[in-house]
Order: sequence, then structure tokens, then C-alpha cells
Amino acid sequence: MSVQNASRVLTLPDSLPLDSGDALEGAVIAYESYGELSPAKDNAILVCHALTGDQYLASDHPVTGKPGWWERMVGPGKPIDTNRFHVICANVIGSCMGSTGPASNAPDGRPYAMRFPVITIRDMVRGQISLLDGLGIERLHAVVGGSMGGMQALSLAANFPDRAARVLAIATTARHSAQNIAFHEVGRQAIMADPAWAGGDYYAQDQRPDAGLSVARMAAHITYLSEAGLTEKFGRRLQQRADGSAGAKSFGFDADFQVESYLRYQGSGFTRRFDANSYLYITRAMDYFDLAEEFSSDGRSGHLGNAFAGTTARFCLISFDSDWLYPTAESRHVVHALNASGAPVSFVELSAPFGHDSFLLDVPALDRVVAGFLE
Amino acid sequence: MSVQNASRVLTLPDSLPLDSGDALEGAVIAYESYGELSPAKDNAILVCHALTGDQYLASDHPVTGKPGWWERMVGPGKPIDTNRFHVICANVIGSCMGSTGPASNAPDGRPYAMRFPVITIRDMVRGQISLLDGLGIERLHAVVGGSMGGMQALSLAANFPDRAARVLAIATTARHSAQNIAFHEVGRQAIMADPAWAGGDYYAQDQRPDAGLSVARMAAHITYLSEAGLTEKFGRRLQQRADGSAGAKSFGFDADFQVESYLRYQGSGFTRRFDANSYLYITRAMDYFDLAEEFSSDGRSGHLGNAFAGTTARFCLISFDSDWLYPTAESRHVVHALNASGAPVSFVELSAPFGHDSFLLDVPALDRVVAGFLE
Repeated sequence: MSVQNASRVLTLPDSLPLDSGDALEGAVIAYESYGELSPAKDNAILVCHALTGDQYLASDHPVTGKPGWWERMVGPGKPIDTNRFHVICANVIGSCMGSTGPASNAPDGRPYAMRFPVITIRDMVRGQISLLDGLGIERLHAVVGGSMGGMQALSLAANFPDRAARVLAIATTARHSAQNIAFHEVGRQAIMADPAWAGGDYYAQDQRPDAGLSVARMAAHITYLSEAGLTEKFGRRLQQRADGSAGAKSFGFDADFQVESYLRYQGSGFTRRFDANSYLYITRAMDYFDLAEEFSSDGRSGHLGNAFAGTTARFCLISFDSDWLYPTAESRHVVHALNASGAPVSFVELSAPFGHDSFLLDVPALDRVVAGFLE
Repeated sequence: MSVQNASRVLTLPDSLPLDSGDALEGAVIAYESYGELSPAKDNAILVCHALTGDQYLASDHPVTGKPGWWERMVGPGKPIDTNRFHVICANVIGSCMGSTGPASNAPDGRPYAMRFPVITIRDMVRGQISLLDGLGIERLHAVVGGSMGGMQALSLAANFPDRAARVLAIATTARHSAQNIAFHEVGRQAIMADPAWAGGDYYAQDQRPDAGLSVARMAAHITYLSEAGLTEKFGRRLQQRADGSAGAKSFGFDADFQVESYLRYQGSGFTRRFDANSYLYITRAMDYFDLAEEFSSDGRSGHLGNAFAGTTARFCLISFDSDWLYPTAESRHVVHALNASGAPVSFVELSAPFGHDSFLLDVPALDRVVAGFLE
């Protein structure tokens, strides 16, 4: 899946070095921006997207036609105010919305597929920094992200400590837990179990591994919601029948319960906008993420505080009480490390019923904290 | 998968009526028993197994060769003491270890496959009661079960209130939540997405939907463990390499992390002992389970207390603090209903690190509560 109408594209002039030891030559970064860049280029905010997100932060998605994924947060007069700030959002490398990823053509003119190098969160951040270099932006007013976007924000602060004055990391973690890895592995196995995956070489086929990707999305989607949120939204309510009558158990395997129908819809909708190989690569990058390990002397264990030793930024961490994917303890762990390295940090756990997805949804307290921190 | 060496098999003399309105003709119940039945037939304990369990409670599994799933609990001198009690465990209908299920031949001589009727937990209990009738056991000393076994224990108490003097329900619920249904739906979709599933008609094929069933098992398995337990057991530790050297990231899609390798092993091992269609039918039965609904006047909503109005049994409910699949609140809900209907009930939440699977594992406090309640 390659998007031709990405409005802005930067081809990196230099090869992009990767943690694996490989490098990407001629990598492309597709991005969107909103609001004017000041003449001093000192009002830029980089927003980093999550696993299945993209650069269409505050403008319609070219495939789905739906509004941008953070329109409620980014725009004129909104918490990330495009009347004041130049807001940039780039598709991460490895993804499929215009930046170089497994669906892109390799130098030999054929899609990389599984020949694409395994990347890390730090590699994604290297791509973001190369984009900022290309745009002539030396120091960001802020780097902002939720979930995997928050991982990038923390990684940017640790690896490029002079490039951002503020770091806002929401519903995220400094390292992927065993349970996080386990859920991702289920998704990867679901994709790879689909015969249409064909070892990743499905781009020239009629059929794509939609069935496997859909199952992967369904499993992941449950982890984005809270148990209480699911109960409130669906409970055990049955689907209305086609004739409009109230639902009854079918004693079959149709989607009897509303929650089943919802999940199936989430799964199949996802396959229309996302590339299965990208899902493999990006989940792998998240699983590899362990910021303390990156900054340890032996590459195995380390103190997270070391990662932030060189930082000059102010930090803000936000967690949600109903998020069981990256629970508050993960944010607290980052906050303690920042305290240990003497960085200024504020932290708040917000109460919201939507689980991990709260950072994308209507949580007025989140808007206030974001607006306040960026002032 | 049909087990020929099930040591005991009862063919039901009458047709087994089902909640769907269908009936099973000539159904077979495969069971095991341990300990002597007293001449008065008043020392029988029925243990009900969980989703993927079977009748091999305290004797080696004929397919895997592994010890019975509750050997630590059931045996001479153990908490469920076979020196005193006659302990019965039957494979539930719909399963695949000798009792009639989708892999069994229908009256036309071909496997039922998806022609097998959708069953409920109450239907499983009807099968258990038919077995007790066949064995001449009028009233159980106790019915005992964990997880889906606990659902059967509660259903038996509600639907056949004179048949058990004691009801011990562990790590269970009186109804499946939206999140429970969602995880099951992921598993079913994984199976049905596997082309080898072939609409359920795979029994005559060389290939079975092992890939899909394995993914289903992996997703479910995560829900059986606690986040803390996974962290303690695996954390982010890497696999040892084949040459015995300490692991390193492969920058590939092999199982780098121990938790990935463990999940893959769980998934593939499961396919050797379980039938994919049985997985569909049994998860469906669990999703349909809502004891209050069964006893409501309109078949939709109801007070759980009504379900226990006719009971003469003593109850014991046990939950585990790290069980997020059927958390303590679910047991409390049952306890409140029993209180409302005036039934004697004791309840304890045990502290154990293993999540939902705690009921199968080494939790000495569980042994003490079980032994004490059965005295």
C-alpha cells in the first residue's frame, strides 16, 4: 500500500543508519504539517504517531476519508494550537502511508517485503530527526506522542537531548513488558499463519493476508479498551436482527453479541488501510524497546536514569487509570528515572473510562494538561 | 480426534435435550473415576473441567502422556481425598476426548462438524446429570470446578438443586463479560480464518486448522496468566541460542524473547490434543453463559438470586487476586446473590501470582480451603 497523494515527502539525502547495523538508502519520510513555521523556526511541535497511526493528524485520511486521528487535540485554538505552533507529524519508517517500509520498493525495484531491515523505535526517531534536519528545525518547542508515539518522544529526548525543549509522553512506557510482547506475538503469528502472507511476498498477489491481519487487529484492539469500557459500551447486548427486531441468541456462530460485531468491524476495516508486513515490523520495534537497556554499559540491563543524563528538556508524563496496556506504574517508572537524573518533570494520572485509547478520545482533563504544558 | 481408550464410557439411554431446542440422540459421555463409591452412593464428588480440560483429572493423559490436570488436588490423602471420596470427572459434551462432540459421527455416519448443535453450559450439565443417573448417584457430596468447571457447578446447583450437597466454584463467574466474549471471538476468528478449517469439514483432510487453533490458544493463554506472573517468569529475557550462548536480539522474526517461544510452544502443543471445532463450540457455550438470564421471566435480564432460590446446598466461592479473566468481583457477585437467596456460602479471595491459572497450580491456601470445605 503506497499513498501517492501524501502532500509532503522528504527523501533523505544521506543513508539512515539502523540499530541492526544495516542502513536504509534513499529513505523517504512522508509527513503533514499544520500552522505556520515562525521565521526563527522555534515554534515547531513534532507529534509522533502510534503503532497503526499515520501523519494525518488533523486532516482527512486519504484512504478512509475519516478525520485526522487527533483532530480534537490539534488545530486552531485547540490544545495544540496551530495558530501558535507549526505542528509536524511524519509517518514512521516501517509503516505504509508514504514513508519507506516493507511495501516500498527496494533499490532493486521490487518491494522489500521481509527483506526490509528490522527497525527499532530509535531508528524511527533517527528518521524524525533527519526530517527535522531537512526542514531546518534545530530545536523543537516540543515533541509529543501517545503510546508508541510516547516511546519515540522519550527516545528522542534520550538520544537527541538538544533537539526538544519539552517532551510530552502520554499512555506509554520506557520498555515493553512480557505481556505487551505476548500480545504482539499473537498478532504476528496470526498474520504469518495466513497462507496469503506467503512469507511476506504478497504484494503482487491478488490476495493479501487480510484474514490474519484482521485477527491481529482484533486481539490488539481488546488491549486498547478497558474491561469497564467494554462492559459499558457493549455488555452482553445482542445484535439487532436485519429486520430491526431485538436480538436473540442464534445458537450459531454469527456475531450474536454486539462486541463480536464491533471487533469484526475493527478487524476488517483495518485491513483496508494497513499493510500486514508493516504490522510485523512495527510491533517488533515496540517489543525491542527498552530505553534503559539502550543506555546500559553491557547492552542488557541498565538504569533508566542514564538515558536522561544529558537532557535539557522539561517533561510531562500522563497516564490513564483504566489503561492496562501501559498502566500508570510504567509512567511512574519513567518519572522516577527523570527525578533521579534531575530533569524537571510533571506527572498526572487521569481518570478516564476508555482504557489505553483514552489518549485519542474525549478526555477534557487531557486537553487542559496538554495545553498547559505546551504554553 | 476420538479417544478409543477412554476407560469408561456411558451411552445415554435417552435423547439429551438442549437449550437450542435441538436434542442429541445416542450421546456418549466419557469419564474417569477415582476412589471407591460407598454402598450408599453418598460419597461422590463430581469435578467439572475447564474449556480445554478433560476427564483425565488424576491419571495420565492418553495423548500427551502428561499427569492428570489436577493430580496435585485429587488423590489419596490429597485435598480431594480419594481414600474417602469417589471422584468423577466427565469430558463435557462438545469436547473431543471421548464424549460426543463435533468430531463425533452423527447418526448418518459422518462427523457432525458444524452440524453439531450449539450447546450451552446447562446442556453440559444435563450431560453430567445423565451420567450421574446412569451411575445411580442421586445426590453428590459435592460438585467442584474451576473456570468453566465452576460455571457448571453453579449451573448444576441452580438447575438441579437437589443433586449436590456442596458446591465449590473456583475462579469463575455467573456470566461471561464483554471482554471475555471478545477474547473468545478472537480465537474463533483465528480458527475460522484458517483455510484448513474448511467450514469445519476438515476431518477427512490431511491438514487441520492447526495454525488458527494455535493462534487462538496463544491469545487465550495470555488471559490465563497475570501480568506480574509473566514478568516474573519471562520478563524481557531473551532465548538462549542453539549453541547455548546467552541470547541476543536477532533483528528478525524468530522467537527472540522467552515469552514468545513459550507462547508458540503452548499454541502448537495444544493442537496435538484438541479439536478446533470443539474450541468453537465450547467457547460459544461459555459466551452464552448468563445464569441470571436463564432464570429471568423474559429470558433477557434477571436477578441472579432467582437462580439459587431452590438450592439446598452449601456453597464455597474462591477467587484469586491476580485473576483478571474472572476477577474477584465476579465471585463477589455470586456470593451476594447467594446471600440474597439465603444460601449458606463462604467466600475467600486468595493471593496467588499465577493469574486465572492459579486454580491449577501450587497454591497451598487453595488446598486448605478445598479440603476444609469438603469435610
